[in-house]
Amino acid sequence: MTLLENLRGPQDLKALPEEHLDELAEEIRQFLIHAVARTGGHLGPNLGVVELTIALHRVFDSPADRILWDTGHQSYVHKLLTGRQDFSKLRGKGGLSGYPSREESVHDVIENSHASTVLGWADGLAKANEVRGSGDHVVAVIGDGALTGGMAWEALNNIAAAKDRPLIIVVNDNERSYAPTIGGLANHLATLRTTDGYERFLAWGKRVLQDTPVIGQPLYESLHGAKKGFKDAFAPQGMFEDLGLKYVGPIDGHDTAAVESALSRAKRFHGPVLVHCLTEKGRGYQPALEDEADRFHTVGQMDPLTCEPVAKPGPPSWTSVFSEEMVRLGAERDDIVAITAAMLQPVGLAPFAKAYPGRVWDVGIAEQHAAVSAAGLATGGLHPVVAIYATFLNRAFDQVLMDVALHKCGVTFVLDRAGITGPDGASHHGMWDMSILQVVPGLRIAAPRDAEQLRLQLREAVEVDDAPTVVRFARGSVGDPVPAVDRIGGMDVLARGDTEDVLLVAVGTMGETCVQVAELLAGRGIGCTVVDPRWVKPVDEQLAPLADRHLMVAVVEDNSRTSGVGSAVERALRDAEVDLPVRCYGLPQQFIPHGKRGEVLAELGLTPAEIAGSIGGALAAAEARKEKDGR
Amino acid sequence: MTLLENLRGPQDLKALPEEHLDELAEEIRQFLIHAVARTGGHLGPNLGVVELTIALHRVFDSPADRILWDTGHQSYVHKLLTGRQDFSKLRGKGGLSGYPSREESVHDVIENSHASTVLGWADGLAKANEVRGSGDHVVAVIGDGALTGGMAWEALNNIAAAKDRPLIIVVNDNERSYAPTIGGLANHLATLRTTDGYERFLAWGKRVLQDTPVIGQPLYESLHGAKKGFKDAFAPQGMFEDLGLKYVGPIDGHDTAAVESALSRAKRFHGPVLVHCLTEKGRGYQPALEDEADRFHTVGQMDPLTCEPVAKPGPPSWTSVFSEEMVRLGAERDDIVAITAAMLQPVGLAPFAKAYPGRVWDVGIAEQHAAVSAAGLATGGLHPVVAIYATFLNRAFDQVLMDVALHKCGVTFVLDRAGITGPDGASHHGMWDMSILQVVPGLRIAAPRDAEQLRLQLREAVEVDDAPTVVRFARGSVGDPVPAVDRIGGMDVLARGDTEDVLLVAVGTMGETCVQVAELLAGRGIGCTVVDPRWVKPVDEQLAPLADRHLMVAVVEDNSRTSGVGSAVERALRDAEVDLPVRCYGLPQQFIPHGKRGEVLAELGLTPAEIAGSIGGALAAAEARKEKDGR
Repeated sequence: MTLLENLRGPQDLKALPEEHLDELAEEIRQFLIHAVARTGGHLGPNLGVVELTIALHRVFDSPADRILWDTGHQSYVHKLLTGRQDFSKLRGKGGLSGYPSREESVHDVIENSHASTVLGWADGLAKANEVRGSGDHVVAVIGDGALTGGMAWEALNNIAAAKDRPLIIVVNDNERSYAPTIGGLANHLATLRTTDGYERFLAWGKRVLQDTPVIGQPLYESLHGAKKGFKDAFAPQGMFEDLGLKYVGPIDGHDTAAVESALSRAKRFHGPVLVHCLTEKGRGYQPALEDEADRFHTVGQMDPLTCEPVAKPGPPSWTSVFSEEMVRLGAERDDIVAITAAMLQPVGLAPFAKAYPGRVWDVGIAEQHAAVSAAGLATGGLHPVVAIYATFLNRAFDQVLMDVALHKCGVTFVLDRAGITGPDGASHHGMWDMSILQVVPGLRIAAPRDAEQLRLQLREAVEVDDAPTVVRFARGSVGDPVPAVDRIGGMDVLARGDTEDVLLVAVGTMGETCVQVAELLAGRGIGCTVVDPRWVKPVDEQLAPLADRHLMVAVVEDNSRTSGVGSAVERALRDAEVDLPVRCYGLPQQFIPHGKRGEVLAELGLTPAEIAGSIGGALAAAEARKEKDGR
Repeated sequence: MTLLENLRGPQDLKALPEEHLDELAEEIRQFLIHAVARTGGHLGPNLGVVELTIALHRVFDSPADRILWDTGHQSYVHKLLTGRQDFSKLRGKGGLSGYPSREESVHDVIENSHASTVLGWADGLAKANEVRGSGDHVVAVIGDGALTGGMAWEALNNIAAAKDRPLIIVVNDNERSYAPTIGGLANHLATLRTTDGYERFLAWGKRVLQDTPVIGQPLYESLHGAKKGFKDAFAPQGMFEDLGLKYVGPIDGHDTAAVESALSRAKRFHGPVLVHCLTEKGRGYQPALEDEADRFHTVGQMDPLTCEPVAKPGPPSWTSVFSEEMVRLGAERDDIVAITAAMLQPVGLAPFAKAYPGRVWDVGIAEQHAAVSAAGLATGGLHPVVAIYATFLNRAFDQVLMDVALHKCGVTFVLDRAGITGPDGASHHGMWDMSILQVVPGLRIAAPRDAEQLRLQLREAVEVDDAPTVVRFARGSVGDPVPAVDRIGGMDVLARGDTEDVLLVAVGTMGETCVQVAELLAGRGIGCTVVDPRWVKPVDEQLAPLADRHLMVAVVEDNSRTSGVGSAVERALRDAEVDLPVRCYGLPQQFIPHGKRGEVLAELGLTPAEIAGSIGGALAAAEARKEKDGR
């Protein structure tokens, strides 16, 4: 058995003699490379925190001490050290989550994988320890990238205010989030990184001066004593210390003994302390280190030696269709600019950035700033396109409402990874946007059903200069074209039945599913009209009169069925006094775990067969009631 | 005519000889004290920025240069200097807005009065200037309190990253937001404030050394040249400079010439620069200066000499009922703790803080942190009550969803100022909460209708330890008790008609309105059952069967009618296959301007007469259609 296989929990790790730690670290790296190559997952970040995680579990006593991970994709090593070594179904249905999970282990605390939350959690847990008189420790691990998020600042400001409340912040500084970290903070961290020169200088001074026996020692002491002014010149950790945080670092994050020693010092300190660890994303895996774009942040299934992907290159993705159209739009209109929140590559803005270098800004993991600065850009005469994952827009709801919409700014939000996304689980499904955005006055939402519609609707969106527009699409490949047979108002008719029994409203990616539902219902003698509204907010004025010709309306969407397009359609019908039965099919009001997109949708009953069955039943019941009432 | 009356715009101000500026400042202060005493409004903050605003409009050329105000309640002086001197209907229907307003003036840019947005706007506008090759300036004025918000940090990080993009940040440092500013940042600013010692020291050095002709001058020069190390010892502006921002200050914000000089230097600097101005909230008005709680942040109508309020003390407010019950709960349960976002006094937590000093935290203007640290506190075994204004919860939507609800944390959010709030206009109406929170799995919402219900429902809320709970109530006085005549499930029946024609669902404060609607409809022979669901999310299981006994359902709520309780009721009825006509009465999907609560509700048709008329018409139409279908 390997060292790793012998570890059933943190106790075993503590018992392991120090001289075996390097060997253990190497075993863990090999395990990660091969396991993640088999399933896909977050590789680069986890290769970077092997020694740090070992040190954390040796110095602290989890779960009494709370070890907290920001953006939990860096928790694979933590999983291995806390008894979870079966990675065979990682991020798959029934397998380990790609993030911490309270269901999996008492050692896991934060399941939310949106960034920059950990310091807020830590502040709350430390306050609870204080109120309850507990001496347990709270340790928060946060990447330098996540420090660019506003929540991190709000938390730092609170943590630093309480000089006597112990709390340990470990900054895992790998100089990047997905991509290299940006902003003033990144520059400051870079300064800190290069100033271990200070420690070296002191060591040199001590050596030189101690060789001068008479005056050397006192001179050294007095130099060392002139701490603040001196230290500032060589190690301007000023920013954190100015806030009132004790600063320890920078530490080589791949030297387990050094990290253990720093953490032990921090553990003894009775107040808030920040330990600055330098790590290397992708450490120990040459292909990752050579990948300048994102150091193998996430990988698909691949051969660990050649790094060839297992899957054949599929049809183009939604992201790539958007990406190409943006480059074309950029050429046609020089007022179009773009914003990304630390994800230039994943949201497909890299080609635009290459073509028009002065017209794209990476604002860091800072969705609030993405939205509010877009309002400023629009007020300044440009048309910004803010490209982010759908689930992360939740962070900017207030700014979309109060900065962009209230000021009638022409800003286009492109929401990638909308709907069920798959392996990343509850906090990555993009199932909230079409619900919460319903309340925003003036805002328009497009849900394209195929590549052609995405291109068209993106163009329609950037034409709007007095209101926010949203274009939302799914993760993965864009699928085959779904042709329209007719148009009513702004809506595409995708299919017509022999009779006008059911009006089926197909939102975005559900177009194809709805065409299949209509075919199944036709087999049961029920005629369906299938419409794709294209723009789902506001509801097309022609929808109510169209619905009125039918016996029933059904809406199918890849979004929460609470307050989504279905609710908007219902409201529009009531307002037009069209009182027909309406049924809404979408995602239930619950947090949905990880699994493949198709599997998840099937489990939730969003298949053609189940939807057709339900509509058929509802129609029959409604007709029976009408019969009864009419008697 | 006074100097002030002669100013029709910034050009006149620029033409005014410098020696008249103190007189002008005094005139402005007298105007503010008397005008705001007549109407009510924000007084303390505006008294603090008189000289600063004069200097801004003398140094910069608005509107080409953009002068931006964070939390626009500090814009009254700006209004006076840009041609708006009729304050007679300030914050009233048809009168001047209490915030900047693009409709009022080309000199106004940001209407959103949620805090901490200005630096993001400024970043966007500066980027637009850069792209468009414009040499215009962007100046953002932000209070020290607003710097505690995460958006400010996200923006600073971006602004500091662009060394060559001009942008001027004026920190209006009065050591407080509402209350004294908290946190590590506040401590740092305090250090900066006391280190004008540095400037004095240099001046002293210059004087002393210049008196020593031979060596003095060169020594002074070399001391002055040893800038960084030296300056750090005396003026640790480190934090901002570490980020890469040029720092100027601290400046006496009541010395117009000094501020003009600092702003002029900043204007010439080709990059981001921060001007630190020290001001005094309530300056020049003794009663304000003596009020340690909030320096007359907002006042009602009052006598400017005695400060006696014009209005007689009314019945207790919703806030005071909550405030008292919290103190009682605190005595009964020592695990109940409280969080405020820089508004201890306005949300009624001051008595709780006094009674249980270690159990309440002011996190600064940081709603995200309020919510996420509450998740930490709950995980640590306590039950936090987060008390904020309803509209500000929008800032924490992602944290309520992903940190509190996903982790099944028992956290109670108390939303004050829900619904139409009145004089503060579009960004202060609390009309979004019952819509966006509908999607949050597990979350429960209480909308109490009177004082007794508020007390009861707060108690029910803090009993829930595995999900977030929300208790939302209106601004102002709590009104008379609305007694129940019966109970069905968890719902109170407020009135029963002779027949069961209409089921009227009365949400929270609309209870009394609905009882009146029922009386009016009774006069037309239509029988209403009026129920107050008390908990509006989830919809009570007894509602659908109750509705099924009626011909029609109407829901009345003081919230956006989009995706609010009405939509939730509709969905619950459809899911139970109860296909009745439903009508929803609430706030329209638009930004609603300022005015008195009653006036606004009347204008929006939320009066008993209008609602009764609409319901009567809808019922008749539905019956007519049924007649026709049944034939």
